[in-house]
Amino acid sequence: MNIKEIKNPKFLKKYNNKKLEHLSKDIRKFILENVSKTGGHLSSNLGIVDLTIAIHKVFDSPKDKIIFDVGHQCYTHKILTGRANKFETLRQYKGISGFQSLKESIHDPYEAGHSSTSLSAALGMAISRDMDKKDNHIIAVIGDGSIGNGIAYEALNHIGDINTRLIIILNDNEMSINKNVGALHNTLDKIRSDKFYKNIKKNTKKTLFKIPFGKYLSNFLDTIKMSFKKIYLKEGFIFEELGIKYYGPIHGHDFKEMINYLKIAKKEKKPVLLHVITEKGKGYKFSEEDKDGNWHGVSPFDIETGKPLKHKNDLISWSEVISNHLYEFAKEDKDLIIITPAMTNGSKLNKFKNIYPKQFIDVGIAEEHALILANALALSGKKPFISIYSTFLQRGYDQILHDIARMNSNVIIGIDRAGISPADGISHQGIYDIAMMMSIPNMIIMQPKDSIESQKMLYTALNTDGPCAIRYSKESLEYKSEENKKIEIGSWQVIDKGKDAVIISYGDFLNNALKIKNELKKENINIEVINARFLKPIDEKMWNNIIKRNIPIFVYEESTKIGSLGSYLSLRITNQELKNKIYVFAIEDKFVQHGSKNELLKELNLDTEYIKNKIKSILKG
Amino acid sequence: MNIKEIKNPKFLKKYNNKKLEHLSKDIRKFILENVSKTGGHLSSNLGIVDLTIAIHKVFDSPKDKIIFDVGHQCYTHKILTGRANKFETLRQYKGISGFQSLKESIHDPYEAGHSSTSLSAALGMAISRDMDKKDNHIIAVIGDGSIGNGIAYEALNHIGDINTRLIIILNDNEMSINKNVGALHNTLDKIRSDKFYKNIKKNTKKTLFKIPFGKYLSNFLDTIKMSFKKIYLKEGFIFEELGIKYYGPIHGHDFKEMINYLKIAKKEKKPVLLHVITEKGKGYKFSEEDKDGNWHGVSPFDIETGKPLKHKNDLISWSEVISNHLYEFAKEDKDLIIITPAMTNGSKLNKFKNIYPKQFIDVGIAEEHALILANALALSGKKPFISIYSTFLQRGYDQILHDIARMNSNVIIGIDRAGISPADGISHQGIYDIAMMMSIPNMIIMQPKDSIESQKMLYTALNTDGPCAIRYSKESLEYKSEENKKIEIGSWQVIDKGKDAVIISYGDFLNNALKIKNELKKENINIEVINARFLKPIDEKMWNNIIKRNIPIFVYEESTKIGSLGSYLSLRITNQELKNKIYVFAIEDKFVQHGSKNELLKELNLDTEYIKNKIKSILKG
Repeated sequence: MNIKEIKNPKFLKKYNNKKLEHLSKDIRKFILENVSKTGGHLSSNLGIVDLTIAIHKVFDSPKDKIIFDVGHQCYTHKILTGRANKFETLRQYKGISGFQSLKESIHDPYEAGHSSTSLSAALGMAISRDMDKKDNHIIAVIGDGSIGNGIAYEALNHIGDINTRLIIILNDNEMSINKNVGALHNTLDKIRSDKFYKNIKKNTKKTLFKIPFGKYLSNFLDTIKMSFKKIYLKEGFIFEELGIKYYGPIHGHDFKEMINYLKIAKKEKKPVLLHVITEKGKGYKFSEEDKDGNWHGVSPFDIETGKPLKHKNDLISWSEVISNHLYEFAKEDKDLIIITPAMTNGSKLNKFKNIYPKQFIDVGIAEEHALILANALALSGKKPFISIYSTFLQRGYDQILHDIARMNSNVIIGIDRAGISPADGISHQGIYDIAMMMSIPNMIIMQPKDSIESQKMLYTALNTDGPCAIRYSKESLEYKSEENKKIEIGSWQVIDKGKDAVIISYGDFLNNALKIKNELKKENINIEVINARFLKPIDEKMWNNIIKRNIPIFVYEESTKIGSLGSYLSLRITNQELKNKIYVFAIEDKFVQHGSKNELLKELNLDTEYIKNKIKSILKG
Repeated sequence: MNIKEIKNPKFLKKYNNKKLEHLSKDIRKFILENVSKTGGHLSSNLGIVDLTIAIHKVFDSPKDKIIFDVGHQCYTHKILTGRANKFETLRQYKGISGFQSLKESIHDPYEAGHSSTSLSAALGMAISRDMDKKDNHIIAVIGDGSIGNGIAYEALNHIGDINTRLIIILNDNEMSINKNVGALHNTLDKIRSDKFYKNIKKNTKKTLFKIPFGKYLSNFLDTIKMSFKKIYLKEGFIFEELGIKYYGPIHGHDFKEMINYLKIAKKEKKPVLLHVITEKGKGYKFSEEDKDGNWHGVSPFDIETGKPLKHKNDLISWSEVISNHLYEFAKEDKDLIIITPAMTNGSKLNKFKNIYPKQFIDVGIAEEHALILANALALSGKKPFISIYSTFLQRGYDQILHDIARMNSNVIIGIDRAGISPADGISHQGIYDIAMMMSIPNMIIMQPKDSIESQKMLYTALNTDGPCAIRYSKESLEYKSEENKKIEIGSWQVIDKGKDAVIISYGDFLNNALKIKNELKKENINIEVINARFLKPIDEKMWNNIIKRNIPIFVYEESTKIGSLGSYLSLRITNQELKNKIYVFAIEDKFVQHGSKNELLKELNLDTEYIKNKIKSILKG
């Protein structure tokens, strides 16, 4: 069958297991070929092909609502619901999203991007269904990493209490992005690692149980489950104790078995959890063998060799630059502790983890816990560096305010992926953290322009009282280091002098600002470029000097305008009763979709060409 | 013994159980007498007197660190660590805090206010202790409500995994603030409600087990525990499955039993959880009989009658005004659903809950889950109103941004206790939510000045697409209602005309603004008072009119200045290249402690006298 011609999943009803297996292979091939060109999430999608097909065979979307937790593993779902023909545009500007999306399809009942929201969302839909006396099913598909997050627990706790029809599918592939952590995971490990089950896994052709169809199936399975319980003792107890019926483990690449269990779940009148074991990266040798999460999210690559298509250069990611510096600090400083919420690989912390395991803590997808833990470590005299994506730091707003900032402890928050997140798009834009933190007392917020400056900032943060946030983007740069030096808290720098106006910027945008300066110079406009490397506190002395010169001030930022540094400087100007003209170039008050960085900057009127012309028209005005 | 003369808990080492019981009575009396004068948290503190004494007898604070989750139940701890002589100043301006406080005592190793942070904090301290090869104990005391929150689960999951020495005391009093909810709680209920245990509870003089002291104690107890397990079957399994050793239930008003178990816990090399059953409000008839949480937090009252000291007037709390309106709406609107995170009583929702139980959901202390649930209900065509204190909404920043605002769903967030929270102080100030929400696209933010306006706002929110936040304070007012009418989204109102300047304000501060206006009138200064009832979006038409008049603009807010409405208006002025003078009177960038509202406003330079003089001096130049 031509994958691109699939309009909706109805055709699956007529497919027998053999045809499902063929389809599965075709879809896997389709995903691999597409993602090798567009980039995207690979391993999770290859692992869940069979499970997604089985769900769509047994249930009726969109009447039955299928919610994929996080949502980056929903490619098969998108294919089966008529979006295969748009896969060339996956995660591209104006193309289809890499996640479920309300606007994209009636088959997407919820949108995520951040983890562990699916159970709460499913329960809300189930409650609404019951009020309306409807009879549809709600299915939440959640990974073994995501289920360890506090929100999932809050939802499970509520689901067990409400006790209505709702199907949770625990897609257990033994790793979230990296290897999972946490006690819950140890329990799941035990279930998985049993000799008995290992045998089945090796012998993938066999089903776990040879289950006869018929009207006694359900009872029979209950009996099996009970004896199973004797073997695994504690298996599933954590869910059963919360009032949720547990079935598992279920072979996630065996259609017969999956479909049987899904049908059982369909008949249940109470919440059930199906524990399905899948193999992440299945069907592609490189992703199958990947243990570090390198094939989780990928750039375009050559299928044959597994090598990225873009030529390697000397540039590395900001994550790696920061990680390298931290690695150097750890040589001397045994109090430095890195904490990551399940992002060891994403934040390039593998080397640090391997060399300094005692100074490394992966808490799993648990941002809130991670921040409080960091706070307690800091209060105990340690130097915690918590590495966290800007967009996920949103989960920790209260912990920054109520815990860290209030107790004024020396927690260093490394804000990874700050600024625009091109391909992940709307759910991952790192453009809110400045607005989030500017109004929090005691916060020190900085952003380096290059590797050396980041080294100084880290060194400063490690030797300063109080909470420090250091932001860095998804861009690449050259790694450099020099002797450790502190910089003065709040100090800005004049990067390039000028007399007609000043442009205040920081981080990656400083290069853009310099470009704009050089372009304007050709037209006899001479602007000064200032590196506002501290967003909070600001450089009072330099600020006063700027004000005194009474030339226009431009603030140029990769952040929401409301709540930005420029917004704060505007408040300063009006509050100081000054007449200085200040113009803030930043992201207007709307959500930012996916696309390349250049495309998005252009759409947002933040590209250098636009800003250059804008400044020119203001100055010549 | 004179309670006020206690300097530290060392004297307890020499006390036998009989003397401990006497002390317990004295402390209970002391707390009751003091709280009846100062106000404060009563029930939780009366319930935990014995447990706190037992902990301090067995452990050595401050070497051993005792963390009270939330912290409002730490009065006995404060008394035993030398703060009884300051209890007259409890929660008063410049007096001792109602929570643990780093600055107050070396016996307070952490600060809370918000729930469920104690386990993460304890683990951080334990990890640090292990790194430093120290041997002290870390004890986290957490309630049965707090342990249901996601952060506690994330921490338990990590604690079970790390497997180091750490003592969790589950203070189970069968209710958090109101009756608890959730599946975990059902499990705890089962343990508690067993006939066997009920007998013990009735007969408080008897210990649960007559345990002989001696070197075989530990083994003996293990045996008991095993047989206990046979009785309770699942008891404690949820913790044991997470790798945490469980002991319980333990009689929380029997010193012999508590001390025995605490000594066992002290010897453990692994994380343990002691499940202690206490009686909330113990020792005072009114609080003992309270089932609705009326004696959780109290104003000064007469001990004899239990009646509040302040005379009743016709004014009721904002919470009750909003709740009354919602109750009226629910008569017609079966899609309206109220969600509360464990604040039924605090938000005055008891009546609604009793009359419309099908339209009422208490999720327990689970703000994040509550917001996602609300979002899913809204996406399913329901009209969820989530009632949440401003300070606790901080826990839901990501859910507002990533879920509700992004999907632009019609969730109504009732932000209770917005503005200054006088006696609870620093951890409860509702002054950050505006800054939090202003930079989130799609948000509609409003604050009513009186009951009628709140009715209109609620009606408007129930009949508008998109997320609406309605803020209201802890103040009291008169309840009024009239026929339902919508107001235009973003519309402001001129309350009182004037020609010399405009003062823009909203909510309770509008009365202050009017007062200032009237004072200034006496001095021939005539300012216009504008009700900026929508903080977002603003009234563009009125804003443009104000600007055109080119008179000074004053913005007067009970919010952090950074990120406030005034901050946004300043940005508008500079960005529109206007020359208007704008002055923002709001809370400067520092944490706000506890005290009466008047004292705090004065300290913050936001009292009417100060503002009046400030405006006068600006206008008179």
